[in-house]
Amino acid sequence: MKEMDIRSLSSSQHRTQNLSNIHKAVQAIFPIFKWGQSYSLTKFRGDLIAGLTIASLCIPQDIGYAKLANLDPQYGLYSSFVPPLIYAFMGSSRDIAIGPVAVVSLLLGTLLQNEIDPTTNAVEYRRLAFTATFFAGITQATLGCLRLGFLIDFLSHAAIVGFMGGAAITIALQQLKGFLGIKNFTKKSDIVSVMKSVWGSVHHGWNWQTIAIGATFLAFLLFAKYIGKKNKKLFWVPAIAPLISVVVSTFFVFITHAERHGVQIVRHIEKGINPPSVNEIYFTGEYALKGFRIGVVAAMIALTEAIAIGRTFASMKDYQLDGNKEMVALGTMNIVGSMTSCYVATGSFSRSAVNYMAGCQTAVSNIVMSCVVFLTLEFITPLFKYTPNAILASIIISAVIGLIDFEAAILIWKIDKFDFVACMGAFFGVIFVSVEIGLLIAVSISFAKILLQVTRPRTAILGRIPSTTVYRNIQQYPEATKVPGVLIVRVDSAIYFSNSNYVKERILRWLTDEEEQLKAAYQPKIQFLIADMSPVTDIDTSGIHALEELHRSLQKRDVQLVLANPGQVVIDKLHASNFTNVIGEDKIFLTVAEAIGTCSPKPTEEV
Amino acid sequence: MKEMDIRSLSSSQHRTQNLSNIHKAVQAIFPIFKWGQSYSLTKFRGDLIAGLTIASLCIPQDIGYAKLANLDPQYGLYSSFVPPLIYAFMGSSRDIAIGPVAVVSLLLGTLLQNEIDPTTNAVEYRRLAFTATFFAGITQATLGCLRLGFLIDFLSHAAIVGFMGGAAITIALQQLKGFLGIKNFTKKSDIVSVMKSVWGSVHHGWNWQTIAIGATFLAFLLFAKYIGKKNKKLFWVPAIAPLISVVVSTFFVFITHAERHGVQIVRHIEKGINPPSVNEIYFTGEYALKGFRIGVVAAMIALTEAIAIGRTFASMKDYQLDGNKEMVALGTMNIVGSMTSCYVATGSFSRSAVNYMAGCQTAVSNIVMSCVVFLTLEFITPLFKYTPNAILASIIISAVIGLIDFEAAILIWKIDKFDFVACMGAFFGVIFVSVEIGLLIAVSISFAKILLQVTRPRTAILGRIPSTTVYRNIQQYPEATKVPGVLIVRVDSAIYFSNSNYVKERILRWLTDEEEQLKAAYQPKIQFLIADMSPVTDIDTSGIHALEELHRSLQKRDVQLVLANPGQVVIDKLHASNFTNVIGEDKIFLTVAEAIGTCSPKPTEEV
Repeated sequence: MKEMDIRSLSSSQHRTQNLSNIHKAVQAIFPIFKWGQSYSLTKFRGDLIAGLTIASLCIPQDIGYAKLANLDPQYGLYSSFVPPLIYAFMGSSRDIAIGPVAVVSLLLGTLLQNEIDPTTNAVEYRRLAFTATFFAGITQATLGCLRLGFLIDFLSHAAIVGFMGGAAITIALQQLKGFLGIKNFTKKSDIVSVMKSVWGSVHHGWNWQTIAIGATFLAFLLFAKYIGKKNKKLFWVPAIAPLISVVVSTFFVFITHAERHGVQIVRHIEKGINPPSVNEIYFTGEYALKGFRIGVVAAMIALTEAIAIGRTFASMKDYQLDGNKEMVALGTMNIVGSMTSCYVATGSFSRSAVNYMAGCQTAVSNIVMSCVVFLTLEFITPLFKYTPNAILASIIISAVIGLIDFEAAILIWKIDKFDFVACMGAFFGVIFVSVEIGLLIAVSISFAKILLQVTRPRTAILGRIPSTTVYRNIQQYPEATKVPGVLIVRVDSAIYFSNSNYVKERILRWLTDEEEQLKAAYQPKIQFLIADMSPVTDIDTSGIHALEELHRSLQKRDVQLVLANPGQVVIDKLHASNFTNVIGEDKIFLTVAEAIGTCSPKPTEEV
Repeated sequence: MKEMDIRSLSSSQHRTQNLSNIHKAVQAIFPIFKWGQSYSLTKFRGDLIAGLTIASLCIPQDIGYAKLANLDPQYGLYSSFVPPLIYAFMGSSRDIAIGPVAVVSLLLGTLLQNEIDPTTNAVEYRRLAFTATFFAGITQATLGCLRLGFLIDFLSHAAIVGFMGGAAITIALQQLKGFLGIKNFTKKSDIVSVMKSVWGSVHHGWNWQTIAIGATFLAFLLFAKYIGKKNKKLFWVPAIAPLISVVVSTFFVFITHAERHGVQIVRHIEKGINPPSVNEIYFTGEYALKGFRIGVVAAMIALTEAIAIGRTFASMKDYQLDGNKEMVALGTMNIVGSMTSCYVATGSFSRSAVNYMAGCQTAVSNIVMSCVVFLTLEFITPLFKYTPNAILASIIISAVIGLIDFEAAILIWKIDKFDFVACMGAFFGVIFVSVEIGLLIAVSISFAKILLQVTRPRTAILGRIPSTTVYRNIQQYPEATKVPGVLIVRVDSAIYFSNSNYVKERILRWLTDEEEQLKAAYQPKIQFLIADMSPVTDIDTSGIHALEELHRSLQKRDVQLVLANPGQVVIDKLHASNFTNVIGEDKIFLTVAEAIGTCSPKPTEEV
C-alpha cells in the first residue's frame, strides 16, 4: 500500500515535472505566454494607444512601400496584418513595430525586377516576390536556430549609416515620379538616370495640379515632423499627420475630380484580407534558386534593421534581447507571411520610435495595429480609390528623410576616417549605381576592415616611466625612456596564423630600425629583445612557429629573446610545443620590470 | 661662362641621378643585378653542386608530376626549364627550387578534368591547362603588385598540414595504378573509389613483373631516404637515388624487353625544348572563364607553398624576403611559362630542402638545373622510352611521403584542439572526397576561426593580488580577491563593430551573474563597474555606441561605469564622440588601482 502510494506520488511528480518542462519549452518559443501572465489593464491602455498610433502611420506608408517593391498596394497592407500577429506571439522585443519598411521594399523591388519585369509579367513577378519572402524567412529562422546571429554584426555601423542614407535618397528620388506626376519614368534607381527622367519631362511631363497637392501636404508633413521634434509630448502629431493628409487629399480629389486633370490616383485596392499564396511559391526550378538568392540578401538587410531596433530599445528600457530567438521569430513570421500574400516584413525604424514614444508596453501594440489593418482591409480600402499618388510620395519622402543621419556621419568622420570612407562608399554606391552595389561596397569595406584588424595588430616599443617600474608605449608617453641595450616590444593581440608572420616581421623591423639608430649614434648595440606578451591572450601553432623563427633570426644577430608576462593559456602552449626549452625557462618572466632586472647587458666591444 | 659651367654640371649631375634611379629600379625588379655584383667563384661552386643535385632529382619527378596533371611527360620537363630561369632573375629567395610540384599538379589535374576529358580531348585539355597557368600567373603578379600578399596568410598552418597530408596520400594512392600495372583505373581521387579500382582488378588486372620492379626500387628509394635522414652529410644519396633508379630500371627493361610482358613504359617523350604556346591560351570565351577560376585556385596553393618555403629558409639564413616581390616574380614566371608550354610551377618542398643542404648560395642553382633540363630535353629524352611507369610511381610515392607531417599534427593536437579539427577536416576532406573539397574545408575552417577570434574576444574579471596594487584575472590568479561593491572587467581586444555588441552583452552578463551570487550571499550589491581598457587598442563608432548602451543599462541598475587606462587613440575618440562628458571626465582613470581608490562604495541599504 505504502509502496503504491510512493509510486503514484512519484508518477504524479513525474507528470508535473513533464508538464512544467513542456510549459517552459512553450514559453521559450512563445514568450507571450510568459509575459502574458503578468499582463494588466494598465499595460493594455499603453499598448492600445501605441497600437492605434502606429496603425494610423503604417496604413499610408504600407500602400507607398508596396509600390517601391513594384507590388499592388494591398500587399503592403497584407504584410502589416499577418506578420505582426506572428511576431507578437514569438518575439521578445517590446517596442519594435513590424511591417513592410522602405529600404527592404526598395531592395526587393530592385532585385526582383532584375529577374522579371513587373509591368508585363505581374503574376510571375508576384510569385517570385513570395518565393523570395519564403526563403528570406527560412534564412532568418535558420540563422537563429544555428545560433549564427552574430553574422549580422559583420555589417559595420558606418557602412549601415551610409547605406541607409543612400537608400533614403534613392527612395526619395523615386518618389519624384508620383510627386511631379511624370508618366514615363526610368526604371533605374541611380541619381543620374532619375535626374535625366525628371529634366527630360520638364516641358510636357510635369503636372502642376499634382505638384501643388504634393507640395502642400509635404510641407504639412514636414511641419508636423518639426513640431514632434521640438516637443516630444506632441510625438502623435507627425504620427497621425500622414493619415490626415490621406483623408483630406482623398476627399479633395473626390470633390474636385482632380483625376480628370491628370492627377494620378490609387484607383483600386483589393478589398478583403490576405488570400493564401502557398501555391504561388516556387519551391523548385530556376525561379526557386533566384528567389533564394534574393531572399538571402533581403533577409540579411531586414535582420540588420530589426535587430538594431530591438537592441536600441532593449538597452533604453534595460531588458535582455536574445538575438537568435528574435531571428527565429522574424523568420517564422516571414515564412507564414509568404504563404499569406505578404512580402518581407521587418521592424521599422520610424514606427518603432513612435510606438516607444506612444508608451507601448508589450508586443500587444502590434496586435492592436494588426486588428486596425484587418478592419481597414475589410471595410475601408474602397475609400482609398481617390487617394492621389502624390500624397503617398510625400508621405514616403517625409518618412525616409529620417533615415539620413547627418549627425552619425559627422561623428564617424570625427572618430574614424576609415569608417567614414566605408560610410561614403556605401552612400555613393547606392545613389550613383544601385542598391545592390552600395550594399556590396558596404559589405566589402566592412570585411576589409576586419581583415586589416586581424592581419595587422598593433605593436609598440615600451620605455620606462622615470622613477617607476612601469613600462609604457613611448609614443603615448614621451617621458618614457628606453633601457640601453634592450628593446622592449609589446604585441597588442593574440598571435594567430592570420597575423603571426606580420608580428614576426614587424618585431624584426623594429629591431633593425633601432640598431641603425644606435649605430649612427655610436651607442652599444641591442643585446636583449623583451617581448611583452600581456595582451597576447592566445597563440596557435603558426604563432609558435613565428616565435621560433623570431628566436632563430635573433640568434643570428646575437640578440636574446625574452618573454614577459605571457598568460596561462600561452604558457601552456609554449610548454606543449617545447618552445620554453628552446629559448630557456629562465628567459620567461612575470613582468617587464623583472625581465629588465635580469637582462643586464654584458659590456660590449666598440661598434 | 661660369653660369654655363654650373648648368652643365647640374645637368650632368641630373643625368647621373637619373641613371642611378633607373639602376635602382632595375635592381628592385631584378634582384640578380644586385646580388650578381658580389657573385664569386666560391659561390658558384656551391650553386653548381646544388643545381646538379636538384636537376637529378627533378627530371624523374617532373615526368611523374606531369602525369598527375594528366599531361604528357615533356610538359613537366618544360616547366623545369623556363620558370626557374625567370625566377632566378626576379626572385629574392636564395634557396627555393622552382618547378612543377606534386600537390599543384594533382590539384590542377583534378580541376581541369572536371571541365574537359584529357583522354578524349587532349588538345583542348592542354590549352585549358595553359590558360589556367596564364591566369594563375596573372593572379600571383596582381596580388604582389597590389601588395595583397597577406591574403595567403588566411590559410592556417593547421589547415595546410592537413591538406598537404591528405593530398600526399591521395597522390600515393593514384600511383597504385602505375605501381600495380592496372589498366582500368578510376578517374576519381577519393580513397573509396581508388580502393574499389585496386581490389576490383586484383585477379586479372595486376601485373606481377610491374609490382616486382616497382617494389624493389621503392624499397631502394626509401632506404636511400632513411640513410639521408640518419646522416645529414649523405643528403645526396636520396637526391640522386631517383635518377639511378630510372637509369637502372630503364636499362633493365631495355635488356629484358619486360614491356612485352605487360610492364607499362613511358614509350615517348617529345624531343626538343619548349614550343611556344601563346596561341593556345584561351583569352576569351567560356574556357577563359573556367581557366581563370582554376588558375586562381592553383595560384593560391602554389603561392602558399612557395612563400612558406621562402620564409622558412630565409629565417634559417636570416635574410629578408619581400612577400609581395616574390609573388610578382612567381607570377611573371608562370605568365611566361604559360606562353612556352609550361604548366603552373612553384617552389618544391623536397627539392628546396635538397638545394639548401647541397649548399646552394643563390638562385644560380636554379639556372644550373634549368641548363641540365635543357640538355636533357635536347639530347636524352629518347632514352626515357623504356623507363617503366612503375619507377615513376615509386619515385612519386617516396617523394610525397615527406609531405605527411605526423609530428606537426601531434604538435597541433597538443597546442590547440580547434586547430586539430581544422587539420583533420582538411585531411579527411581530401582523402575521402576530393582535393577541392579538402581545400574548401581548410579555407572555411580557417575563416571560421578568424570570425570567432574577431567576434568573441576574451574578457576577464580582475581581482587584486593581495598586498599589492596589481589587478589580475581571477581565473588565472586564484589568490586575487574581488573588491566589495566593485566589479572589474578587462576586455582583451580592440572594440569594433564586429565584437562591440558581444562585448557589451558579455559585460552585462558578468554583472548579472555577480549580482545573483552576491544576492544569494546577502552581500552588498555592485556599485561600480570598472572596465580595464588597457588591451583595448582601438575603438570605432559601433564600439562607442556599445559603451553608451552599456552606460545606459548600468544607470538603470544603479551601477556607475568607470574606465581605467584607455589608450591615447581610444581617449581621443571618446572625446570626439562626447562620451567622456556622458560618463564624466572624473570617471576615467590611468590605472585600475587609481579607479579603485576613488570608487569607495557608498553605504547601501540592505539587499
